[in-house]
Amino acid sequence: MSGTLYGVGVGPGDPDLITLKAAKLIAKAKVIAYPAPDSGVSFARSIVAEHISETVTEIPMIVPMRVERFPAQTVYDRESEVIAKHLAAGVDVVVLCEGDPFFFGSFMYVYNRLADRFSCEIVPGVSSLTACASRLKHPLAARNDVLSVIPGPASDEEFRARLSLGGSFAIIKVGRNFSRIRTLLEEHNLLEKAGYVERATLPAEKVMPLAEVSDDCAPYFSMILIYDGEETWF
Amino acid sequence: MSGTLYGVGVGPGDPDLITLKAAKLIAKAKVIAYPAPDSGVSFARSIVAEHISETVTEIPMIVPMRVERFPAQTVYDRESEVIAKHLAAGVDVVVLCEGDPFFFGSFMYVYNRLADRFSCEIVPGVSSLTACASRLKHPLAARNDVLSVIPGPASDEEFRARLSLGGSFAIIKVGRNFSRIRTLLEEHNLLEKAGYVERATLPAEKVMPLAEVSDDCAPYFSMILIYDGEETWF
Repeated sequence: MSGTLYGVGVGPGDPDLITLKAAKLIAKAKVIAYPAPDSGVSFARSIVAEHISETVTEIPMIVPMRVERFPAQTVYDRESEVIAKHLAAGVDVVVLCEGDPFFFGSFMYVYNRLADRFSCEIVPGVSSLTACASRLKHPLAARNDVLSVIPGPASDEEFRARLSLGGSFAIIKVGRNFSRIRTLLEEHNLLEKAGYVERATLPAEKVMPLAEVSDDCAPYFSMILIYDGEETWF
Repeated sequence: MSGTLYGVGVGPGDPDLITLKAAKLIAKAKVIAYPAPDSGVSFARSIVAEHISETVTEIPMIVPMRVERFPAQTVYDRESEVIAKHLAAGVDVVVLCEGDPFFFGSFMYVYNRLADRFSCEIVPGVSSLTACASRLKHPLAARNDVLSVIPGPASDEEFRARLSLGGSFAIIKVGRNFSRIRTLLEEHNLLEKAGYVERATLPAEKVMPLAEVSDDCAPYFSMILIYDGEETWF
């Protein structure tokens, strides 16, 4: 009997924003895997560190930062086979994932390699989307608003098509596209309605109106939220 | 010194999908408020029942089902003032909200009435969005996919404008718009890519391809997810 592959969302960063289910699964896990940078600590692991048993087997999936998808694919090919050996031996494996596994989550790389061979359970987590809204103290969307989630690397054409339709927007993975996105929002008169959040729920968090952000680039873990819905209905 | 108003997301339904933060705040709360139907139990309260202290003061905000916004506004006007009295007396109040408070959450009705008068903290929760994706075992969105969240009551025109742009879609609050939405998806050749989830993570949950749903209407707590992104990058 093979083990089960658990894809466990660990939320945006505050250790208290993991679910009871995640805490229980992590505490009883014999094997855990998580993405890690080539130097420094794994963000996903750091969020849940207090729940990890001392006798656990750890599989850090070391994905070099700043490189594009092909080297990462090689890492996931290799580490997925390490995970597969544990599963084949009947041992459950808990794979940690920042935020939610199926909302732009890194777990998908493992999932796609193993889900056809092993039983798999996804444990949803608090996504950065709602965590950022909670820190800005402004609703993401309400009533019949349409909410568009746009990754920062999307083309100008894609941004323009979406922004011109209106509604609420969450622009994720802002990073080095920051200046370009700010210009696109100005074009659509949305700058004054935009909030900026960096490292939501973490000690290094920044929360401010987008118009007040002076830097020309932003970290990967930053988001721009725009609420353009009807406010008067509340 | 006034109390703090806490808007606490309690997730999609599985009691294990609340956050540690929600569990702690609820356990130590002296006053809790939650939306409730005019007959039967409060869904939000039922999710966290085991964490509620026996000596708590409860404020059920009884919103009649099936009626439109104006009677609900009267209820929220009145109950927000009940909450305000506790806050003014220096007592914190925990307001429970299904899913996440700022993702189409009922807490916004209370927030909008009290946030200018009292300090307020939002505790994000697992949203139905990612909970439904976890049950369908299919990613919501990955890499540079755009994700559009469309409420079921949106107009045909609104649906067509969004669907024709492509990407991933989450159609929430399906309810009595079910047949109309299915027809719109067929028009855009998206029926075969659509999954249907009803009451995600609850015992009465239903998960199936949309094409296999035979009913002509769906409950309020149902969602249609469509993944139309690039699959080969994984």
